[in-house]
Amino acid sequence: MKSAAFLLIFLLAGTVLPAQEDSAMIRKIANEILQNGKAYDNLRVLTKQIGPRLAGSSGMVKAEAWGEKTMKASGAEKTWMQECMVPHWVRGGVDEAYADYTSTKAVRKKLDIVALGNSAGTGAKGLKAQVIEVTSFDDLEQKKAQVKGKIVFYNYKFNPTFVNTFEAYSDANKYRGRGPSAASQHGAVGVIVRSMSHSTDNNPHTGGTRYDSAYPVIPAVAIGLRDADELSEILKTKPATVFLKTNGHFLPDTIGHNVIGELTGSKYPDEIITIGGHLDSWDNCEGAHDDGAGCVQTMEVLRSFVAIGYKPQRTIRFVLFANEENGTRGGQKYAAEAKLKNEKHIFALESDEGGFTPRGFNMTGTDEQYQKMLNWKPLLAHYGTGEIARGGGGADIGPLNRTFKTPLAGLFPDSQRYFDIHHSRNDVFENVNKRELELGAVNMAALIYLIDKYGL
Amino acid sequence: MKSAAFLLIFLLAGTVLPAQEDSAMIRKIANEILQNGKAYDNLRVLTKQIGPRLAGSSGMVKAEAWGEKTMKASGAEKTWMQECMVPHWVRGGVDEAYADYTSTKAVRKKLDIVALGNSAGTGAKGLKAQVIEVTSFDDLEQKKAQVKGKIVFYNYKFNPTFVNTFEAYSDANKYRGRGPSAASQHGAVGVIVRSMSHSTDNNPHTGGTRYDSAYPVIPAVAIGLRDADELSEILKTKPATVFLKTNGHFLPDTIGHNVIGELTGSKYPDEIITIGGHLDSWDNCEGAHDDGAGCVQTMEVLRSFVAIGYKPQRTIRFVLFANEENGTRGGQKYAAEAKLKNEKHIFALESDEGGFTPRGFNMTGTDEQYQKMLNWKPLLAHYGTGEIARGGGGADIGPLNRTFKTPLAGLFPDSQRYFDIHHSRNDVFENVNKRELELGAVNMAALIYLIDKYGL
Repeated sequence: MKSAAFLLIFLLAGTVLPAQEDSAMIRKIANEILQNGKAYDNLRVLTKQIGPRLAGSSGMVKAEAWGEKTMKASGAEKTWMQECMVPHWVRGGVDEAYADYTSTKAVRKKLDIVALGNSAGTGAKGLKAQVIEVTSFDDLEQKKAQVKGKIVFYNYKFNPTFVNTFEAYSDANKYRGRGPSAASQHGAVGVIVRSMSHSTDNNPHTGGTRYDSAYPVIPAVAIGLRDADELSEILKTKPATVFLKTNGHFLPDTIGHNVIGELTGSKYPDEIITIGGHLDSWDNCEGAHDDGAGCVQTMEVLRSFVAIGYKPQRTIRFVLFANEENGTRGGQKYAAEAKLKNEKHIFALESDEGGFTPRGFNMTGTDEQYQKMLNWKPLLAHYGTGEIARGGGGADIGPLNRTFKTPLAGLFPDSQRYFDIHHSRNDVFENVNKRELELGAVNMAALIYLIDKYGL
Repeated sequence: MKSAAFLLIFLLAGTVLPAQEDSAMIRKIANEILQNGKAYDNLRVLTKQIGPRLAGSSGMVKAEAWGEKTMKASGAEKTWMQECMVPHWVRGGVDEAYADYTSTKAVRKKLDIVALGNSAGTGAKGLKAQVIEVTSFDDLEQKKAQVKGKIVFYNYKFNPTFVNTFEAYSDANKYRGRGPSAASQHGAVGVIVRSMSHSTDNNPHTGGTRYDSAYPVIPAVAIGLRDADELSEILKTKPATVFLKTNGHFLPDTIGHNVIGELTGSKYPDEIITIGGHLDSWDNCEGAHDDGAGCVQTMEVLRSFVAIGYKPQRTIRFVLFANEENGTRGGQKYAAEAKLKNEKHIFALESDEGGFTPRGFNMTGTDEQYQKMLNWKPLLAHYGTGEIARGGGGADIGPLNRTFKTPLAGLFPDSQRYFDIHHSRNDVFENVNKRELELGAVNMAALIYLIDKYGL
């Protein structure tokens, strides 16, 4: 009975399996990338010669020039810079913090913190106040009467029981996003958030916060995990004051660019497929995984197609998006201009979950489109992306879906290491593995090839 | 039509899906390991306080004592040391090498090498000879007339087009195993092998070689990839001599031990399930991935069962095997004693492919046993091991299969990073990720739980 069932499954599956020539073409693309890949060397240049590149910074300007040059070198038929206004938040100096408390004697402990992106600074004199720990928004609600004049310390732990760490991130990052205003609402004067990470080190992790204009804007920082645990331990038995000094502020919006390369379709030039990553990074790191990886993988797909002489039927746009981290203005601009020009966007793929070993694609689209992608699983699984799940895509391509209902996919790499380094000073080139980065590009190229050939 | 087919597949699969309670129990095990895991801390002690532990070394003795202590602390009902004689190869000193050649002037270049395990030393004065490069055994055959009195340099590249790096390893490691005697057969006086790695650094990778007693025993070393490329580049235009000094030799066989812990089965105490890794490592590294990871994962499975109060129906043996790297005497002894005692070994699982993020299990057994494991895929896939492939197990449990036809499985972690560090000085604790290590243990525990409950 069991054997008969399996036979039946194979027979049924066989009716929708793609052709042998697709398998051969994907092998050819993979060999090109795994033997002659340039993604890793390109990433070295971006991270080591340019480095941090937050929207509005001089790094952004250098990265855009590098992007266009590298796009051309990778074989784009056309390249252009798509202008967009981007926010210009600056850290404005070195973030400083220490905690004071009395044990058997007075103790002052330096804290490793990083101001949250978009956050307001404390002013030159800094801010000193008693600290109150809360473990959740519910806990804040319970303690709201004690919050006035204090620094609220959100010590919500990244939940280790989620196997996919992006679920732990979704669960925890509300404290970084809404936490400052939620505390300010009750009269807090500052906020410290426990970093959203499973890391075993003490590096603090930044990321954008969003103030609610109904409440006073207060300074907000993230703290490393060891310091968070120690501070929490202290607060169990004694009061502590914390001194914070941060200097974050906004300058006027400035001009940034999406960097775009194109291969024009030979058969359906009006049908556009977009593939991309974002060029900006936080200012406290090299942005190697987030999202230098996605940028160099995008250009590697381009390079591999050109190197093996593959001529796409549809137009493929390779995009390094501006300002994902604190505004997503690049992605919004890309969709807005597409709408203005009445373009036909049939598919978009983003890589923005790190340059780790590929495991699958997350997909937003109709049931029929999803089934079509599932049918390609036998072709993709060998290269790593055997898990094709519903939902997701990427922050920069999201506007295309909202504008045109364009189906989206996001490369889904193994998630275990990502939040160890995400938005922290150790998001550096040395933490990227050459093969893992290349295999991501292989799987992206394979999917784009299939979409180009069959549509979606 | 397509929907009907999918429905049918789900209905058919549904008839063999395991019960809801298994899913709940595996979740409970996973939560215990991911929230309260000790594998990472245990690995820190093994690697940082004990370090290298090649068979016969003082590190081996310390590691065995640590192993028994940790096995008890993890909750074993019984523990014992199973004695076996192990080979005792020693490096005997610092490996040295340099190349001499004439460019516009005489150049001497230091080479980063490591003597192969089990290899004979050059003697105190070292060995100097002209070097001849070959790219394969076929190439050696072509050049055999030129080999006499020279050092043969096997510059066979680790093939990047294999997605699974273990395939590249199987493809390349014959040069390390058979290369020295194949060269000696034609009168070579020494051998240099290109390290079996995709790494981007220059660390040389050791590993065991095997001399054919028909030919003279000659010194043999591995060389880092950058040095290999540079030496090859030099040899394209000019002759070079290489000086080698190595001191490897065997001391008399000595006493080692398999460290064993047990939970006795409540219902079928005579049916034995074995789970293990190997305690020995090469002498040039901490053996963090190879195979400290497998050892601490094995004890973590034990600890998690005891912590949640799971009482196995069958007897489970947790084994830290001796001497996998240069003799597999531990695994042989374990099976031999099992045969002597007429034990019933129903299943064995090994983790010896690194502490990286889990992807699947490799399985050796009958078709029926394989199908049974496939049926558990829905339970395992969520935790990472969705890929269940035929063939494999582990070097230490192989003798059980050969003795009793015991079905075997090997944990199959993502393979991309393994050969970057395998047998080289950077196989250290810092290159192990806590979550990845723990998830390996989660999947091992889940499989052992299922085997214990249902047999195989």
